[in-house]
Amino acid sequence: MEVLITGGAGCIGSDLAARLLREGHQVTVFDNLSSGKEEHIQNLLNNDRLKFNKGDLLDKKQIENACKNIDVVFHLAANSDIKYRPEDPTDEDLKLNTIATYNVLEAMRLNSVKKIVFTSSSAVYGEAEIIPTPEDCGLRPISLYAASKAACEAMISGFCYMFEMEGWIFRLANIISGKSRKKGKTVLSDFIEKLSTNRKELEILGDGKQRKSYLTVNDCIDGIMLAMKEPYKQVNVLNLGPEDSITVDEIAEIVASQMGLKDVKFKHTGGDRGWPGDVPRFLLDTTKIRKLGWKPRHTSREAIEIATKSLLDQVIQ
Amino acid sequence: MEVLITGGAGCIGSDLAARLLREGHQVTVFDNLSSGKEEHIQNLLNNDRLKFNKGDLLDKKQIENACKNIDVVFHLAANSDIKYRPEDPTDEDLKLNTIATYNVLEAMRLNSVKKIVFTSSSAVYGEAEIIPTPEDCGLRPISLYAASKAACEAMISGFCYMFEMEGWIFRLANIISGKSRKKGKTVLSDFIEKLSTNRKELEILGDGKQRKSYLTVNDCIDGIMLAMKEPYKQVNVLNLGPEDSITVDEIAEIVASQMGLKDVKFKHTGGDRGWPGDVPRFLLDTTKIRKLGWKPRHTSREAIEIATKSLLDQVIQ
Repeated sequence: MEVLITGGAGCIGSDLAARLLREGHQVTVFDNLSSGKEEHIQNLLNNDRLKFNKGDLLDKKQIENACKNIDVVFHLAANSDIKYRPEDPTDEDLKLNTIATYNVLEAMRLNSVKKIVFTSSSAVYGEAEIIPTPEDCGLRPISLYAASKAACEAMISGFCYMFEMEGWIFRLANIISGKSRKKGKTVLSDFIEKLSTNRKELEILGDGKQRKSYLTVNDCIDGIMLAMKEPYKQVNVLNLGPEDSITVDEIAEIVASQMGLKDVKFKHTGGDRGWPGDVPRFLLDTTKIRKLGWKPRHTSREAIEIATKSLLDQVIQ
Repeated sequence: MEVLITGGAGCIGSDLAARLLREGHQVTVFDNLSSGKEEHIQNLLNNDRLKFNKGDLLDKKQIENACKNIDVVFHLAANSDIKYRPEDPTDEDLKLNTIATYNVLEAMRLNSVKKIVFTSSSAVYGEAEIIPTPEDCGLRPISLYAASKAACEAMISGFCYMFEMEGWIFRLANIISGKSRKKGKTVLSDFIEKLSTNRKELEILGDGKQRKSYLTVNDCIDGIMLAMKEPYKQVNVLNLGPEDSITVDEIAEIVASQMGLKDVKFKHTGGDRGWPGDVPRFLLDTTKIRKLGWKPRHTSREAIEIATKSLLDQVIQ
């Protein structure tokens, strides 16, 4: 199959590209390298089944051309910097997520591409009343990022029903990678950076009791690959995450310990969340995807441990 | 209070403007008159508490200026032509609903306007599995129009939580009015128009068995006015519709009968729905708004009868 991966030079996208190449597919990576990095796909560039298309989803013509002869679009590109700061424009997520996704869908329609796989986020649920949260729970986004992901989901649904396309929407737990990105710092790179500068004290956003679940990129890609195999259904919405969660303080302890640091003083900025729009506690109900045969290999704690080790190995190099 | 009504020259907006004036408020009608009509607010223009602002929501500066000193925005403006035809652009709803709503929210944020009332649609549920459909049911839009309404809801939720605004989202049944609009023909004006030309035969989209519920504008406005009185809650999502529904064939019979026509032959275009993206059957669970004290005065049948009479009276004039 000919597949296009938007955001294909990102942390998930580049590993997905490698997996799809291994499975024999033709892969086009479409990325503007705003948060993705060319180095993430460097080792794939000599594979003649891989094409790198440096393009921007806000340029309709570019994505329209990129969709020619494509069978499946994995639409991963998004604003990865999910924290809104008072000085930020409020239309970043509207542009980079909502409008970009419209451009992808329209480019697909114009080229009769019939299948889209979309990486949504657990954030769309907001502070859910039901935890673990099942897919049919109403959405109540509490951030501009989450709102745009919900908007993308809605458009995908609309396009799939209107134009007989097939949509796969994965609502992801926090995906944790051994790769780092240009924009949108993760909790791990934040802690490693801070502890490299000050080995005695660590500033932790919020009260440290935020409890979230983390999934390795590999487990995430295993889930996404289901979309290649399952029989056709118009719109498929699936939670994708581990069955457990971990607190931010526990993550801090893992990072400090792996860095060989003892008695690090945690200094909490306070409040029940890390930033405005942060969902302080979530856990996904993954009954639906488990019934399709998916099972993560790692718990949240293991995912954090693996990614921390990988990030630290790179720092040391 | 100083209120701004976007789409204030529309079928609902103009009646809402009249009601808010009667209750003593300062009202600014913001409308680009693309589907609204100046004649709908003609009788209000000599009220010195009414201001008419002919403006376009896609012009950020215009809506930003219009939001100065406003206490509440009733955001009713939308693409009223919900049927997508193959020759139509696919970004009408994205622009006129999603991006326009972002512009409203951003204009409110910049002017510290803290309250938005939004007219969403029962269409956001798509073909719901639960009928009557409660608010916490997951959304699965099957049209570009419905997708954009769901996207607007998500953005309102995001803005309300991020910037401490209060949001009232009403998911409306089909609102039926004695007024007609420029764009986006309703079932009643379609039938009246056709039967005026051919008094013996009526073309009905679909199989005529589509079953929907209809609410008069007055009942709708009674519901919306709740938002002025209820105590503050960040985001309030409320279904608004009658407890019954009516088939398209039954509507055709009412119109024919009120036009004094007998033995009109119904010619169905066939299929279970009127157009691609049409939801053939819906009924809203309105337990939530009824608990707040709202109750419609009319059933779906009565709403259709009242609106048909009013429309026919205008034709005769």
